[in-house]
Amino acid sequence: MITDEEIFDGHLGGKLSVELTAPLQTQRDLSIAYTPGVAQVSRAIAADPALVHRYTWTGRLVAVVSDGSAVLGLGDIGPRASLPVMEGKAALFKKFAGLNSIPIVLDTKDPDEIVETLIRLRPSFGAVNLEDISAPRCFEIERRVIEALDCPVMHDDQHGTAIVVLAALNGAVAVQGRPIEGLRVVVSGAGAAGVACTDIMLAAGVADVTVLDSKGIISAARADLNTVKAELAQRSNPRGLVGGAAEALAGADVFIGLSAGVIAEELIATMAPDAIVFAMSNPDPEIRPEVAHKYAAIVATGRSDFPNQINNVLAFPGVFKGALDAGARRITEGMKIAAAEAILDVARDELAVDKIVPSPLDPRVAPAVAEAVATAARAAGVVG
Amino acid sequence: MITDEEIFDGHLGGKLSVELTAPLQTQRDLSIAYTPGVAQVSRAIAADPALVHRYTWTGRLVAVVSDGSAVLGLGDIGPRASLPVMEGKAALFKKFAGLNSIPIVLDTKDPDEIVETLIRLRPSFGAVNLEDISAPRCFEIERRVIEALDCPVMHDDQHGTAIVVLAALNGAVAVQGRPIEGLRVVVSGAGAAGVACTDIMLAAGVADVTVLDSKGIISAARADLNTVKAELAQRSNPRGLVGGAAEALAGADVFIGLSAGVIAEELIATMAPDAIVFAMSNPDPEIRPEVAHKYAAIVATGRSDFPNQINNVLAFPGVFKGALDAGARRITEGMKIAAAEAILDVARDELAVDKIVPSPLDPRVAPAVAEAVATAARAAGVVG
Repeated sequence: MITDEEIFDGHLGGKLSVELTAPLQTQRDLSIAYTPGVAQVSRAIAADPALVHRYTWTGRLVAVVSDGSAVLGLGDIGPRASLPVMEGKAALFKKFAGLNSIPIVLDTKDPDEIVETLIRLRPSFGAVNLEDISAPRCFEIERRVIEALDCPVMHDDQHGTAIVVLAALNGAVAVQGRPIEGLRVVVSGAGAAGVACTDIMLAAGVADVTVLDSKGIISAARADLNTVKAELAQRSNPRGLVGGAAEALAGADVFIGLSAGVIAEELIATMAPDAIVFAMSNPDPEIRPEVAHKYAAIVATGRSDFPNQINNVLAFPGVFKGALDAGARRITEGMKIAAAEAILDVARDELAVDKIVPSPLDPRVAPAVAEAVATAARAAGVVG
Repeated sequence: MITDEEIFDGHLGGKLSVELTAPLQTQRDLSIAYTPGVAQVSRAIAADPALVHRYTWTGRLVAVVSDGSAVLGLGDIGPRASLPVMEGKAALFKKFAGLNSIPIVLDTKDPDEIVETLIRLRPSFGAVNLEDISAPRCFEIERRVIEALDCPVMHDDQHGTAIVVLAALNGAVAVQGRPIEGLRVVVSGAGAAGVACTDIMLAAGVADVTVLDSKGIISAARADLNTVKAELAQRSNPRGLVGGAAEALAGADVFIGLSAGVIAEELIATMAPDAIVFAMSNPDPEIRPEVAHKYAAIVATGRSDFPNQINNVLAFPGVFKGALDAGARRITEGMKIAAAEAILDVARDELAVDKIVPSPLDPRVAPAVAEAVATAARAAGVVG
């Protein structure tokens, strides 16, 4: 048990600190790090701007950017209230990948203004982790920021989640000894994570993915879909299912819960034999894992107090480290798939029904992911 | 001697690092600093936004903001090339005041866009140190950022310089045992530092300040003045001098060099007895100190290799620490004057012709300045 007092004490003054990487004790130190020495370095960068990543911290600096519009399960609590989450994220970047990271929280929710602000800030950092921006705005914002900036940009709620879900799904089918291609998958939630998880599974060869939102199955038959969901209807639900969770889950091999919606035990009972259930809502999974286990062969959650914790921290530190190490201008689909494979490879020899992914605290993961992502970036020709 | 190699090696990877203030070793640590614990803190800030400074790093975080338009003596070298200077500044904030500080360099020189960007970024930090922004744009930008943000904002090239110059001038006259009010002062340079130094001396009771720009004495008789200089002509040059450095310096008590312009020995020779010369251009003072000493009783420079080094680092760390400690909404003229007095008070018992201010490395200065600034903020009613 963790008390409120422990939590608030743990946040006093924030969780981050800016420190010096070199001594500043003597007049000589000052003359190197500040005037007059620093003028030499500024002159060199003015002559060759590419040197900025060598002689400043930007080559290893990730801006964690949010407007506070979709923070954890708390919703639109605004930029100030989102800051403790962004500081936590920055702390994880340092802890797992040794990257520097600063929270940038914006007092605007206008996509034009967010994109414009990041363009103006571009020289201040080396990469952008978009965080906790609400759907469907997050899709447009990420697309436009990627187009506008010549550096790695990723909305972690989308792609960090997608990468770890793909790793976990590959881990589960590896334990079961069946191929991923033939699975019937149901995704509950058509927000940032739901759309990205669907897309990465399609890219990985899963042919049959059906997505549920709060109104039921996303299908071309529905007239109430926004643009993002209408497009999703085109590339998912190949059997043209209509209805709700009951129609989607009957005979399904995999359930991936990415919304706060509860799934009744009776529906999980209708899934195919050897079913796989990822009930990832936090803090309350869509179905209690011990209940899901009555019907499913493999169960995972987002929680640390059950086996098979699926957590983004397995992905984002290594993804950004690999992209920055390689000098990548963007993060490609191939880099994300490579990250998912690298996560799984770390635990390949230890895979079991209750260990389909490595532990979020496994220190081997981020370096392995970084190396795979950097290699994929070089192969894709998006470096330098 | 410092070699180029030492300087560039000292900048490899930059000079700053983001570190964690609490351990992140165990699942329990993660549960406090990140999910699920962090949600409690976010909820508390959503309910009471004032808590953000208590539970995030923003309460002690200074953004060092520049557009790279007037960097050191290098001029408009752009935001990327300005970064090593901003990192150095951030390092000094940590070293002398224990404050966290992040460089924010902007890829725009448009005052509207700079102000707008800082308004959008406002929730990300606790104070703004504007740095190396060219005159006269810096005056408008600082005024508008101060108006727009409810936090301490200071353009250091203006006011940091003004504070240390006032401290040094008070130190010089204390050594000489004469009052500041009767001095005839000549300021060379009508940029950021020149205007602010003139204003703080006027506020401190100096009645007769004459300012030189590259065309000569700033006077109401000139038709070529921009708005800032035209206004400066109204409050300076009370004897209505016209001409150049020769006319200004004849019989003057104090020369303060804040431009790269050389001042001929013959002109220093025409100053009044017991003259005070601050030749602060870096790396080349307006006149060599050993030459100035042939005529002047007290000589100071911006350099570390001569006595009486006048350096902004005596001011800005303590000014921002005091303002943040007090929860000040702005930095008032009274807070700046209090800072100048506190700087001098540290060396009051050690004052001499070759020690009119404390050393820039004196660790007593920033805490003393912070305390004086915080007290002045509370007295001015600009806190909370």
